[in-house]
Amino acid sequence: MANPSLLILAGDGIGPEVMDEVKKLIAWFDTKGIVTFDVSEGLVGGCSYDAHGTPLTDETMARAQEVDAVLLGAVGGPKYDKLDFSVKPERGLLRLRKEMDLFSNLRPAQCFDALADFSSLKRDVVAGLDIVIVRELTSGVYFGEPRGIFMEGNERVGINTQRYTESEIARVARSAFELARKRGNKVCSMEKANVMESGILWRDVVQEIHDKEYPDVALTHMYADNGAMQLCRWPKQFDVIVTDNLFGDVLSDMAAMLTGSLGMLPSASLGLPQANGRPKALYEPVHGSAPDITGQGKANPIACILSFAMALRYSFDMGAEATRVEKAVEKVLADGVRTADLMGPEGGTPVSTTQMGDAIIAAM
Amino acid sequence: MANPSLLILAGDGIGPEVMDEVKKLIAWFDTKGIVTFDVSEGLVGGCSYDAHGTPLTDETMARAQEVDAVLLGAVGGPKYDKLDFSVKPERGLLRLRKEMDLFSNLRPAQCFDALADFSSLKRDVVAGLDIVIVRELTSGVYFGEPRGIFMEGNERVGINTQRYTESEIARVARSAFELARKRGNKVCSMEKANVMESGILWRDVVQEIHDKEYPDVALTHMYADNGAMQLCRWPKQFDVIVTDNLFGDVLSDMAAMLTGSLGMLPSASLGLPQANGRPKALYEPVHGSAPDITGQGKANPIACILSFAMALRYSFDMGAEATRVEKAVEKVLADGVRTADLMGPEGGTPVSTTQMGDAIIAAM
Ligand SMILES: CC(C)[C@H](C(=O)O)[C@@H](O)C(=O)O
Ligand SMILES: CC(C)[C@H](C(=O)O)[C@@H](O)C(=O)O
Repeated sequence: MANPSLLILAGDGIGPEVMDEVKKLIAWFDTKGIVTFDVSEGLVGGCSYDAHGTPLTDETMARAQEVDAVLLGAVGGPKYDKLDFSVKPERGLLRLRKEMDLFSNLRPAQCFDALADFSSLKRDVVAGLDIVIVRELTSGVYFGEPRGIFMEGNERVGINTQRYTESEIARVARSAFELARKRGNKVCSMEKANVMESGILWRDVVQEIHDKEYPDVALTHMYADNGAMQLCRWPKQFDVIVTDNLFGDVLSDMAAMLTGSLGMLPSASLGLPQANGRPKALYEPVHGSAPDITGQGKANPIACILSFAMALRYSFDMGAEATRVEKAVEKVLADGVRTADLMGPEGGTPVSTTQMGDAIIAAM
Repeated sequence: MANPSLLILAGDGIGPEVMDEVKKLIAWFDTKGIVTFDVSEGLVGGCSYDAHGTPLTDETMARAQEVDAVLLGAVGGPKYDKLDFSVKPERGLLRLRKEMDLFSNLRPAQCFDALADFSSLKRDVVAGLDIVIVRELTSGVYFGEPRGIFMEGNERVGINTQRYTESEIARVARSAFELARKRGNKVCSMEKANVMESGILWRDVVQEIHDKEYPDVALTHMYADNGAMQLCRWPKQFDVIVTDNLFGDVLSDMAAMLTGSLGMLPSASLGLPQANGRPKALYEPVHGSAPDITGQGKANPIACILSFAMALRYSFDMGAEATRVEKAVEKVLADGVRTADLMGPEGGTPVSTTQMGDAIIAAM
């Protein structure tokens, strides 16, 4: 059988720095004889625009479709702020999501015990927090047509379209229910059914899929504004949250910040199963390209490393190896190894990106 | 000159209970010879549906257009959950906002010192917090066409339209800049210009209005997902936030929850100045109809009372009297008077809705 294949798109800002630590881990798995990945690399985002005038070339897009999993670092930066909408770094990422049809974006918000005090929330509100937001990633207002800026009389008007079909809602609902069964068996679905018809359809379809296929899972519905409140008040009431692309964007970032561990949070974006049984998949840290600390060796590689652990689990059925990576991260944190973003007021000397990567490998 | 006029729409759930305390305050202002309001009352929401088969009658709508200010309690409740979209309680409120053209919704998120420990956030993160979210209230995805649930092939599709014209953005931006000048002179505008064209137009127009008319105000822009994070991380970095209808809904509820004082937060929805110089206006608490505690005398009337204080300030140019109400509330809180929602873990005996209202009047 051919080796499992990975496409690495390190991207912009701190992307390449944190991805270097993942490459070390990939080499470690190879050296130990556990698994050998066929690794190729490419450009996405601003660096691709610089090289090719587009945030993602057709060749790289085609390569992403062929491999078993894509590992992405981060895209964007102030240098690209003035670019035309159609070639902004983000368009590269959005094209990958759309063309690979990665409809289910899993964003765990997990509070690491060693870091609970970093949260702006009280310790008892967040310690032990472990929830997952399942965000629909290929539809909604991100992709709906018509869209654009048009002239109407003598003024401009900006238009976007929120649009969900029944089958789009059904498939992401299923992935949330499947996930819940492996966890706390609870799903909360969030929309604004009180003001948006697309929210009504969302609620109805989620309920129908539940009643027909997942009656054993506890399902609740919540308006997204109340959801934001409840995430802030007592996030531990949730297990799996399923929501649309735009609400998912805002709520998952907020949930990530609750944990105080933004530099620590991974994500998986999954699509349909391929001929070989593996889903189309892209893994990326929740954090962005952090232009303010780029090139200083300060970035925390843990989110990127944990995204690779998610790849082991969801793409390669190597749950035990994924857990091994996660445990190594926990051990290193418990030992007090800290990058700059994890330094508390009590001070101490932070380790560099490389040192953190090395410590995690040593703990393997 | 005719007396200033008020239309009271107490609405559903705890709406009537908390509004009763405002009525006492209105009577107090009359008795003291300070100001006499012409008060009329009407129905909105579920109670209007029960009486008339519609969440807002044309007569009540017409009356709302005539008066100087509308005071609203709350709308909605589980009893009405299964109603058709077109007659849901919320439609009554949305019709008022739309037909009165109340485009600027001011939602202060203020942390009362006596209550800082109620927040799920750490005391130093929220103590002294005083920010205002200016939410656009009459456009965006709440009102854009086309909208609805349609058949496409053999499946349903749910559609809503996010739509903003240049002039809609300009006028709410102006109201945010005006407000900032009376406060910390800082505005942060939030959208998703990286993925939505309507967000690009939003950003451009806010910047243009700033450069032409308010160059003295410090303006920044932030993506709404990052905005949610930053509100969670360090909300005191903000002064005035201006954002669209949907982001404003989610972010303002979240900001309200940060303060730990949800039962305390008022809001003002303002439109264009009328012939008499007063803006069209509606005032309502941020909290909802709280069906779980309805009819038990447990509701906290402070948000509704502070909404009336906002009416004194913004509709009737009675800033000094508004401050007097606000100071009375602060005093009562400092004295340890607490409704059930304000009871800490240390316990004590909560006062009833009526007792809280009486205490505030006594403190006037
Ligand atoms: C970079 C941007 C296009 C993206 C999004 O809005 O989806 C990001 O915020 C995310 O959450 O992955
Ligand atoms: C009741 C509902 C229609 C309303 C909204 O979504 O605007 C409420 O959540 C609010 O924020 O005032």
